[in-house]
Parts: sequence; C-alpha cells; structure tokens
Amino acid sequence: MTVRPENRHQAALLRLLRDGERSRAELGDVVRLSRSKLAVEVDRLVALGLAEQSGLAASRGGRRSGLVRLSPRLRFVGIDVGATSIDVAVTGGDLEVLGTASEPCDVRQGPAAVLDRAMEMVAKLRAQGLAEEVHGVGVGVPGPVSFRDGVPVAPPIMPGWDRFPVREAVSQELGCPALVDNDVNIMALGELHAGLARQVADFLLIKIGTGVGCGIVVDGNIYRGVSGSAGDIGHIRVDDFGPACACGNTGCLEAYFGGAALARDALAAARGGQSPYLAERLETRETLTAADVGEAAAAGDAAAVRLVREGGRRVGLVLAGLVSFFNPGLVIIAGGVAGLGHTLLAEIRSVVYRRSLPLATGNLPIVLSELGGTAGVVGATRLISDHVFSVD
Amino acid sequence: MTVRPENRHQAALLRLLRDGERSRAELGDVVRLSRSKLAVEVDRLVALGLAEQSGLAASRGGRRSGLVRLSPRLRFVGIDVGATSIDVAVTGGDLEVLGTASEPCDVRQGPAAVLDRAMEMVAKLRAQGLAEEVHGVGVGVPGPVSFRDGVPVAPPIMPGWDRFPVREAVSQELGCPALVDNDVNIMALGELHAGLARQVADFLLIKIGTGVGCGIVVDGNIYRGVSGSAGDIGHIRVDDFGPACACGNTGCLEAYFGGAALARDALAAARGGQSPYLAERLETRETLTAADVGEAAAAGDAAAVRLVREGGRRVGLVLAGLVSFFNPGLVIIAGGVAGLGHTLLAEIRSVVYRRSLPLATGNLPIVLSELGGTAGVVGATRLISDHVFSVD
Repeated sequence: MTVRPENRHQAALLRLLRDGERSRAELGDVVRLSRSKLAVEVDRLVALGLAEQSGLAASRGGRRSGLVRLSPRLRFVGIDVGATSIDVAVTGGDLEVLGTASEPCDVRQGPAAVLDRAMEMVAKLRAQGLAEEVHGVGVGVPGPVSFRDGVPVAPPIMPGWDRFPVREAVSQELGCPALVDNDVNIMALGELHAGLARQVADFLLIKIGTGVGCGIVVDGNIYRGVSGSAGDIGHIRVDDFGPACACGNTGCLEAYFGGAALARDALAAARGGQSPYLAERLETRETLTAADVGEAAAAGDAAAVRLVREGGRRVGLVLAGLVSFFNPGLVIIAGGVAGLGHTLLAEIRSVVYRRSLPLATGNLPIVLSELGGTAGVVGATRLISDHVFSVD
Repeated sequence: MTVRPENRHQAALLRLLRDGERSRAELGDVVRLSRSKLAVEVDRLVALGLAEQSGLAASRGGRRSGLVRLSPRLRFVGIDVGATSIDVAVTGGDLEVLGTASEPCDVRQGPAAVLDRAMEMVAKLRAQGLAEEVHGVGVGVPGPVSFRDGVPVAPPIMPGWDRFPVREAVSQELGCPALVDNDVNIMALGELHAGLARQVADFLLIKIGTGVGCGIVVDGNIYRGVSGSAGDIGHIRVDDFGPACACGNTGCLEAYFGGAALARDALAAARGGQSPYLAERLETRETLTAADVGEAAAAGDAAAVRLVREGGRRVGLVLAGLVSFFNPGLVIIAGGVAGLGHTLLAEIRSVVYRRSLPLATGNLPIVLSELGGTAGVVGATRLISDHVFSVD
C-alpha cells in the first residue's frame, strides 16, 4: 500500500519535515499558507499516517505553536549494487540510517541472483525490527540506466542486466514505490543530503572506482541528460596516442586511470622491476589491485607514487575542462580509488587550478568525500523519498 | 513605468500568450484555474494593459470561448553588443521582430560611447513609430557577465567595461526593466525561442567567433554556473604542447581555432607560400581574416581547406567530451566562423560521432544555426520577456 501526499502543499510540508521536527508557525512561514489552511493540510498528513503531532514549541511571543514531525513509522530502503558488493540501508522518513548491511557479491551473477541476495539482506534488517512497512526503495546499479523506465541500458560490466525490469521487480517484492539510477548519481544525492554538498546547488561528484564517472547536480537535482548518460566521462579523450581503451578509441581517461588501469600498470611495474614493493607483493598473490598501489605509495615506493600522480594529472586535465564548462560550486572526489588520498587530490587540484578559468576556480573547493561507503545507500533513500514526498 | 503580472497565474498566462492568441478555454486547460478564477486573472491583465480581448474562438461544442491576446502595444528591445558591431531589434510582446538596426562599432570605445550609440539606434527605431513605450530591454555583451549584478566582469576584449553598471544605465535610459547577459547565452535563448532548439529542453550552442564560447540550456533555461562563467570553453585544453594562448597556458582550443587563430594561420600560410590564394589576397590588403580563409577554401585552396578541417577537428575533440558529459539533445554551431559552413560541420560531426559515447550521440543532431544575425537580439528580448512575464 502506497501512501503519498495529496497535493503540492502536503509534499512541501513532508520535505521540510524530512529535515527535522518543525513548529506549525515555522511550517506556515515556509509554505505560505494561512493558519487555517495549514492546519487542514497538517491534519490530512496525520490522518494519512505520514506525520504526527509531537508537543508544543517554545513561545515566539504569543500562543505556543504545536510541533509536527514525520511519522516515526516511515521507512525507506536504499540498495547500492556495486560491481563486487551489495550495500543496503534502512532509514527513517528523515533518512537517518537505522541499520545497514554489506556483502560481497559479483554483479555478473545476473539480476535474478543479485536482487534475490539484496532482498534477503533487506529481509534480515527488517527481521531485526527495523522496518515493519517499507514506504519506498531506491536502487543504484553500476552502469547506465534509463531512469524513466527503471532499467539498465547496455551496461558494460553487468552481463544479463540489459533492460531487466529492476524497478518493477524491487517494487513488487517490497510492495512500495521504487526508483533505479546509476551508482554515481545516487552517490551525488548522498553528498547532497548528508555530505559535503549540503549547501551547494550546483556541483560535480567524480567517482573513481574500477572506471571513472561523474554525478552532475544542477539546482539541487540530478542532471541526467536526454538519454540518461550525462556524466559518463570515462571515455573523454586525454590524448590522441594513449593506450587502447575497451570502447575502441585510444587515450580515453579510463584507459589511463581508474581501478582497472591502475591494476594493469601495477602489474607491469612489478614485473618490469620498477617497483620492489609491488614485485614482493606479487610473489604472494596472483594479481595486484589499486589498493596495493595505494599501500605501496604510502610506503614510499617511487613507482607507485608516480602511478598515482600521473593518474591524478589525467583526471585533473579532464576535470579542468569540465570545470570551465560547468562552473560548479564544488567538486567531490569519491570511490574506491579516492582512497589513494591526498597525493591524488593534490595532483588533481594542481592541474585544475592551473588549467581552468580563474573565474571558474576562484571559490571552487575540490575535496575528498567524507561519507565513505554510505553515500550510495543514503543517496538511494534520498532519491526515493524525493519521489514519495511529491505529487508527480 | 513598469507593469508586471501580480501573481504566478497571470505570469503563466502571459507566457502562454507570448506564443500567440488563445481562447479562454485553452488558457484554462493549461493553467488549471476554474472558469471564474481565470476570468478574474484575465480581466486583471486587460486592466493592467498587458492583454486584451480579441473576438470569439471557434466553438468546441458549447458556448464560443472568448479569444485573448497580448496587448499589441507591448514592446521589447534587444541589444546585441559585439566586438565590432551593435545589433538592435524592437519586437512586440510575442517577440515578433518589428524592426532592426545594425552598425559597426568597436566595443573598445568603452561603455559610455557604445551604449550611447545603442540608445541612438533604439531612438531611431522608435522614431519610426515602432515603439511608443518600451516594456523591457535585454542586452548581450561579448564577455563574462555577473548576471545578478548586471555588470561585465573582467571582460578580456572590453577595456573600460569591467563592473560598468550596464543594466542600470540601460534601464534608466529607457525607463523599463533591463537584463544583461553574455552574447553566447542570448544567442542560445534566440535559438530556444525562434531557432532550431524550439522543441529541445537541453542543448548546447557553440559560438565560433573571434573566440569560442558555449551556451548551455538545461530544462529550457540558461545554465550560468555559480559565478556566471559556465560555457567558457575557449580555454579547454586540446593538447599539452600546442600553441601558446593569451591566457598563459598552451594548447587551449582558442589558441588553435576561432577567428583570431584562423587569421594568424592564414597570414602564415600566405607568407610561407602554402596558399597561393591567400598570398594573392594579402598583396592587396594589410591583413587576412577568417572570412578570407572561408573564401579560399570555397575556391578550392588546399591550405585553406586544411585550416578549416584541422580547426573543426579540434572543436570536435572538445565538443566530444562535452557531449559525453552533458548528453544534450541538440548541438548548434553558430557565430561568424560558422560561415565556413559544411566542411567545418562535417569535421566536427565526424570527430564527435567517433569519440563520444554511443548512448550520448544516438539521437544527437549537430547542426549549423539558421538564424544568422538575429539570434542574439531575439534572444535578448526573450531574456527580458521571461523576466517581465514573471513575478520574481
């Protein structure tokens, strides 16, 4: 059963209450309704089970105003399907995280197996008493998504998922509204809701994981472009004569940098004798990862530091162009490879501040995400709560 | 005296009527007001002198509905200040052009002289009986603008204009609301209103003039970025080791291509003996321009064709990245150098279609503007009419 606001006033009230308890006087100030009309709408939200009275506010001079808050029974679920993991969170109506779960899972097992697994994780959290009813679920997946249709579209690293009705499946399973978006967009929404972008209307989130992607927020909303592929920056050209890329071109950003390129270069450095640290590590393992490069760099291995700096330079070159074009208020660097930390960040900053227009970088912070693993799941609940708390 | 709508219903009605006469029944369908409330708002617009009754519509089955149109006395003025010219237009409330004027004028004469000149051109058009009263004026200038403050900000080719109160000056002079934006943004608005972008919510307009700039339209509105510099793509890097650019970096797009770069390369080709056509032309002139390169290319001069194609390739490389990032529904190429025509367009298309993501280019038209010189002035009237027909 889906309970939604009946008009845009109720929707506006719910979004205000998502940020915390308010007095009726405060609500009236923001939604600009007369006291009597506001009372009607608040009473309807209470009757619908979406809000409740919660005491009296401190006096503002006259009669004390009644406090209103979201119903404490509201629950949203966020699911972040990654290439090699599933993260799940249950939140209240205010998107405060009540419980999370995380498990390794290979997305290449296909939608049936992966979504079953995610549903089991949600069921376990609910069995702990975290959610009697679920009022909405947001899902992120590691590939391009038709947001309107709620399906992945030709996702390169998700065999079997093309056009699979993820939104339908999850909505039916949990008996509530569902929305699906790509993982980078939900991370950007997480930053907007709970991270460093809370006060920023226009910003970019650069996710450096296995590949490189970008979440674009315009005026507080995800910008998806006309076919939903906006922000797909991994194949922007860095140079004409760079390494061959899986896309068929040469010199793409992802062919130079990202988890996959870094693993490739680490292996070459270990085998070629440039990196004693990585060579030693390779003796006990079958392969090397971006995390190994991070550890090697932290231990002072010169070849590893060079890989991180060169990667940062290439990300910086692409980002410099995007900053000139988009003139954002903030750039957040996130994703597993962002764990390479300040060496990477320093290099990105140095290139962007040197190559972008002074007008565009004057007040531009470039920062590492502070949310870590929760950005995606929180963003997923933000996505679905925006929908549930609306009249679209 | 400024007449503006009193509420958002009236504003919505005015924007509808800007696209043409409507029956009350049609207006009611769109703004979703009861018949009686609609009648109140329409009557107020008539009383304010913004709209008028204009007869009876064909019957939709019942009583014939009254027709409403904008007052035929409404007038907007658009002023497009270029590097070397001023264009002015007077339009009706529906932005149909009633009269235009165009004069050469060097923007380096400074704001006082240039704006005086523009005011004289407006006065001449008004003296022809085109505008008794002016209800709003939009102004475009060839440099970065603080849209909020209505002033140019450190514009590189406009000495003396930095922080000059253009909006204030023009508003006082004409006794009506005024807005100022950069020339590329008003061209994009012109395309949105009267050009190839009429049905497109998200698109890019690439202007190739002396320099290269980009107008960004998101959901039918100009996206300006946090400090107003969005779309300033002339200094995006094409290569690390390209020609030195006026900005202090090397390999910027503008250092490779645009009117200024093309004139430089044409001179070199003429003097270096690569281009018989340009060498001959140089004998009778002091210098060469982008237009000379266009004529040489049209006449089959190989060196000139090469300059156009190489320039198109560089624009294409930068645009390919922007298309992957922004996933627009349309790209329009405009500006003086766009006069180089289909050789240039073919090269740009070839690179974008090869280098951008298939998802982003699947349905992406890349076209030459068909508006020519009027895009800027029409866009300027669109800008100010959006403001006058609003309650902000």
